[in-house]
Amino acid sequence: MLRFESDYLEGAHPAVLEKLTSTNYEQCPGYSEDVHCDNARKLIQAECGMDAAVHFLVGGTQANTTVIASVLKAHQGVLAADTGHIAVHETGAIEATGHKVLTLPHTNGKISAAQVEAYVAAHYADAAFEHTVQPGMVYISHPTEYGTLYSKEELTALSTVCRKLGLPLFLDGARLGYGLMSDASDMTIKDIAQLCDVFYIGGTKVGALFGEAVVITAPAVAKDFRYHIKQHGGMLAKGRLLGIQFEALLETGIYWQISKYADDLAKRIKNAFVENGFTMAFDSPTNQQFVVVSEEFVKKVQEKFSCSLFERRANGDCVIRFCTSWATQESAVDELVAFISANPAV
Amino acid sequence: MLRFESDYLEGAHPAVLEKLTSTNYEQCPGYSEDVHCDNARKLIQAECGMDAAVHFLVGGTQANTTVIASVLKAHQGVLAADTGHIAVHETGAIEATGHKVLTLPHTNGKISAAQVEAYVAAHYADAAFEHTVQPGMVYISHPTEYGTLYSKEELTALSTVCRKLGLPLFLDGARLGYGLMSDASDMTIKDIAQLCDVFYIGGTKVGALFGEAVVITAPAVAKDFRYHIKQHGGMLAKGRLLGIQFEALLETGIYWQISKYADDLAKRIKNAFVENGFTMAFDSPTNQQFVVVSEEFVKKVQEKFSCSLFERRANGDCVIRFCTSWATQESAVDELVAFISANPAV
Amino acid sequence: MLRFESDYLEGAHPAVLEKLTSTNYEQCPGYSEDVHCDNARKLIQAECGMDAAVHFLVGGTQANTTVIASVLKAHQGVLAADTGHIAVHETGAIEATGHKVLTLPHTNGKISAAQVEAYVAAHYADAAFEHTVQPGMVYISHPTEYGTLYSKEELTALSTVCRKLGLPLFLDGARLGYGLMSDASDMTIKDIAQLCDVFYIGGTKVGALFGEAVVITAPAVAKDFRYHIKQHGGMLAKGRLLGIQFEALLETGIYWQISKYADDLAKRIKNAFVENGFTMAFDSPTNQQFVVVSEEFVKKVQEKFSCSLFERRANGDCVIRFCTSWATQESAVDELVAFISANPAV
Amino acid sequence: MLRFESDYLEGAHPAVLEKLTSTNYEQCPGYSEDVHCDNARKLIQAECGMDAAVHFLVGGTQANTTVIASVLKAHQGVLAADTGHIAVHETGAIEATGHKVLTLPHTNGKISAAQVEAYVAAHYADAAFEHTVQPGMVYISHPTEYGTLYSKEELTALSTVCRKLGLPLFLDGARLGYGLMSDASDMTIKDIAQLCDVFYIGGTKVGALFGEAVVITAPAVAKDFRYHIKQHGGMLAKGRLLGIQFEALLETGIYWQISKYADDLAKRIKNAFVENGFTMAFDSPTNQQFVVVSEEFVKKVQEKFSCSLFERRANGDCVIRFCTSWATQESAVDELVAFISANPAV
Repeated sequence: MLRFESDYLEGAHPAVLEKLTSTNYEQCPGYSEDVHCDNARKLIQAECGMDAAVHFLVGGTQANTTVIASVLKAHQGVLAADTGHIAVHETGAIEATGHKVLTLPHTNGKISAAQVEAYVAAHYADAAFEHTVQPGMVYISHPTEYGTLYSKEELTALSTVCRKLGLPLFLDGARLGYGLMSDASDMTIKDIAQLCDVFYIGGTKVGALFGEAVVITAPAVAKDFRYHIKQHGGMLAKGRLLGIQFEALLETGIYWQISKYADDLAKRIKNAFVENGFTMAFDSPTNQQFVVVSEEFVKKVQEKFSCSLFERRANGDCVIRFCTSWATQESAVDELVAFISANPAV
Repeated sequence: MLRFESDYLEGAHPAVLEKLTSTNYEQCPGYSEDVHCDNARKLIQAECGMDAAVHFLVGGTQANTTVIASVLKAHQGVLAADTGHIAVHETGAIEATGHKVLTLPHTNGKISAAQVEAYVAAHYADAAFEHTVQPGMVYISHPTEYGTLYSKEELTALSTVCRKLGLPLFLDGARLGYGLMSDASDMTIKDIAQLCDVFYIGGTKVGALFGEAVVITAPAVAKDFRYHIKQHGGMLAKGRLLGIQFEALLETGIYWQISKYADDLAKRIKNAFVENGFTMAFDSPTNQQFVVVSEEFVKKVQEKFSCSLFERRANGDCVIRFCTSWATQESAVDELVAFISANPAV
Repeated sequence: MLRFESDYLEGAHPAVLEKLTSTNYEQCPGYSEDVHCDNARKLIQAECGMDAAVHFLVGGTQANTTVIASVLKAHQGVLAADTGHIAVHETGAIEATGHKVLTLPHTNGKISAAQVEAYVAAHYADAAFEHTVQPGMVYISHPTEYGTLYSKEELTALSTVCRKLGLPLFLDGARLGYGLMSDASDMTIKDIAQLCDVFYIGGTKVGALFGEAVVITAPAVAKDFRYHIKQHGGMLAKGRLLGIQFEALLETGIYWQISKYADDLAKRIKNAFVENGFTMAFDSPTNQQFVVVSEEFVKKVQEKFSCSLFERRANGDCVIRFCTSWATQESAVDELVAFISANPAV
Repeated sequence: MLRFESDYLEGAHPAVLEKLTSTNYEQCPGYSEDVHCDNARKLIQAECGMDAAVHFLVGGTQANTTVIASVLKAHQGVLAADTGHIAVHETGAIEATGHKVLTLPHTNGKISAAQVEAYVAAHYADAAFEHTVQPGMVYISHPTEYGTLYSKEELTALSTVCRKLGLPLFLDGARLGYGLMSDASDMTIKDIAQLCDVFYIGGTKVGALFGEAVVITAPAVAKDFRYHIKQHGGMLAKGRLLGIQFEALLETGIYWQISKYADDLAKRIKNAFVENGFTMAFDSPTNQQFVVVSEEFVKKVQEKFSCSLFERRANGDCVIRFCTSWATQESAVDELVAFISANPAV
């Protein structure tokens, strides 16, 4: 079986394991107050071109919950696309911290500045506005859950509206590398850092064993953040593990190289589908590809290639997802492309 | 500097890193539904002599919060020693889930069956008992935060009272190995599994990079536990990492061997102090040793050996803590013992 | 100005004030453990034909929050119509207790047994179901926020599905009297008590100064409920005030008489609108009437009659709400009817 | 039986009921946006000599929870005496909002500026301070749960320290009238308003049917407070009820007169005990008196006079509490005093 169902099928990029091994006997203070975390912080600040606060957390749900709970006051909620990970796939982690996720209808996984502005205007226009949750921040993911990207224009507009309205803008970058290295991206990480108040550089899905680097550019959000990390069970005793991994991924640019590598392989898969008459469910330029296929195709492809079933439509069609990562073999993609060509849509 | 200030100074036992490396390219489903987690579960069930539910979490605060929040109803609190980790050092993580920690005065870090029974009796004897938090479960740590141990008789009494009163008994085993391998222990892990409703086998402080194996023996506590893990940000995408580490530690008994090794080294340190006229703050038979020393001694010892300052007493005396682990060098202990002999208390 | 914008414009039915005054110097124990609360409990149990637990709370949001937070476990949410009061107009009170409101699309303010069954089936059919909130109970309002009613057949179907699935069924009866006394109702309060696990008899909007009587028919829900009342700030020191009011409303049937009275007046208003060519936004048989009118009509009617603006539609039409209560004057309705006849829709 | 066990045995001062009755048919908008609430706000602002925000809530636990949850950020707790109502008698209502109550040892129910300063200093001196809850505000009660009072010097010192440390100071005034009208008081309500950031004027225990007037002098605390009221179920539909009651109590000074009346009666009871050889458990100058008596005395006194048993001491002695209020009859006090004289301590 050649596996394409997720981008966290394997362990870590070899450079990560090597560095964990070579530093294993170093004695470090705990809780990310060690030299490796410091070094990783500096590497990230350099990437961002900014003296931001950088904290290392273990996973995405933890990062989302910790950031959002640290920002919101008790009567506030977070605006998000109705397809946002926090709205759908975190077992109510945000609500468990006392806050409502205020959903906006998505367009290809994205929300717009205009939607945020209209929501906030409608909130305060309601005579009984204090009987409803106050919007207190905005959450987006980039790439989105559908692999799509915000353009620099779109993110700038969101950022401008958020700053005008006093809403911190939080970008979930669980797959940030795949987004920034995409041919379709017109942004750099420096743009992200300038436009967002807080975001994270995902490690778990981009070459690390685990780990997300939370970058906080807004001082008000950065204040006291370590308390929140501890309260949410995210203060890793051997915090070094996170620093070491981000050092390994960033010091020679591996993070960006493997992101590009995976995006290129995903593009080959996408092209194969399109060229063979299939319709992509979303026009994703990153490492996740969603394609509309028949149920028969699903059965046949799954004999040799694993993928994830994303949606079963009323007409019998299915949407299936193929992911690539640093660990995806080119030969596996060759085989998949050959299979697609041999089984065209028409 | 020879470091003794904690038991999480280094990375992991080499066997852990080797297994992570050798399995790195295996493709596994996420979220601990892989073959390594299954295998680690079986190893743990065999150790416990029981078909218990086993879940793998990243760290101690996360394990404590997830277990306690999954057990308590909204109007209930958790009974704990006033020195318990959840009462003191988790930034209010339990309260953040809506529950009060109901503290009992500790004796050497421990609470007794009689205290639990009296607290519950007093609760229901109060005419306004519904104006106070209902005790809903009991938390203990073993070894305690002071390195001390419950005897089998003590734990049996606690377990009996808890079962009589319908209070699940939860044992925080962040340092369980050091407890069970202590000369002073009269319990096996099978006893723990029989007497507790839920406990964990600590990995972070006993040879792993990170990870705690939560063992749930009470079916009512086990039900739906994975939802709680996800809600608390503890559902590791690459759950395999936890399974692989516990496999490495348990399949050839490394977990127990390194616990014994660290306990033996700690005993050498303790003996050196006692033989040289020092008073131990607590009579710990495990890998943490707390000794009463003068401020002058603190300054001098810290020139060469790191330790943690635990308490500064009104009379100027200090309590300092020395920890050992799998990574502590015998030669470092030799040097520390020599230093103590050269600087006796009187 | 003749006011119709809500059913809580005035104080209380005179019988309520009289009883509060005549009992004012009685000395009673606090916290609803007095003879008036006991008597009111018996009156309610007799109405329900069942030995249910009865608790008195001050208001609707408090009742909703206390009931729901007392029932759900940490990983569970409550199913409700997307128009449900808890989903829309309680400033995230449910989320503040840690729970997500799981919304279902409404039909005239109602949800169906089939929707609940399908939602639960889809939840468990999802391979990653533990990454989403577990449905733990069902909330409905009767009458709904749109004045509409469940038929006995619809409520029986909901009850049957809920019991099959183990989901407690909670009915928000803030306007219960208006529902049960409607010509369109085919249910008695005994039916409600048989079919629901917990519901409340609204006092605030039906003749009392304030107060809701929560009736719990399911023993598992009733257990420990007073703790939850206290925790949510609902344990009124002078609990007698609630008992006295429900005594006054129920001992001679005032509650039902004034509900019928208000429904009859509302029907006259509805008929006047329909007969004069207006479209009702919802076919409400209770004391709230929603009618579609032009913006011009709104301006004109509000010169003499207050009503609430419920919705402004894209085409310029408005939906406005008229409410009646025990305190609505027949002469005021006469004038409103005359106004409608003088200003027909066409 | 002559009852002295609490100050909420009867309904309300007659002026309150009369005003509720005389205004019953007025039509008012809901949610405390009516003319009576506005008028009561002005009366209170005049009393306080300050243009403060004033909100009306139903009860004490609700007021405490709403204020505290509105002030604290997620990682913060509230400092309070270990005897504070929020620490002991609110079924964990504060913890239910996610926050730890950080207790300080009381002295006669009070805490000092020095204690607050030392706690905060120790917090930040701890190397692992982010592993513990950050102190975020200070709660005191005045009179305390033991009837005792802060002097102006003590409250000024607390206020000064709190402002220096950036901790809002919150005063629970459930029995504020009894405090300010005590012979022992050297403060006015203007002093309270100047020194505290938020406090409340208790109505439930001082002549109202129910109700607490929350006065917020700090703009940062006042912001968005109505959202919090609604979220905590405290937004009374017929908010007028609260405005009307405070109007009745304040427009002719009834609030202060009945407080003085009750304090004077309590003083007679205290003097009788002291003169007959009894020891007061606390030196209370307000309407609650706690006296140490034998178990035999308890039995005998309770044949004719109800009181509350506050504590049963190891030596067999009991502490019992006698309360007075606006409704206490002078003749009842005469009888109690006679009883005490006839049953002296020795």
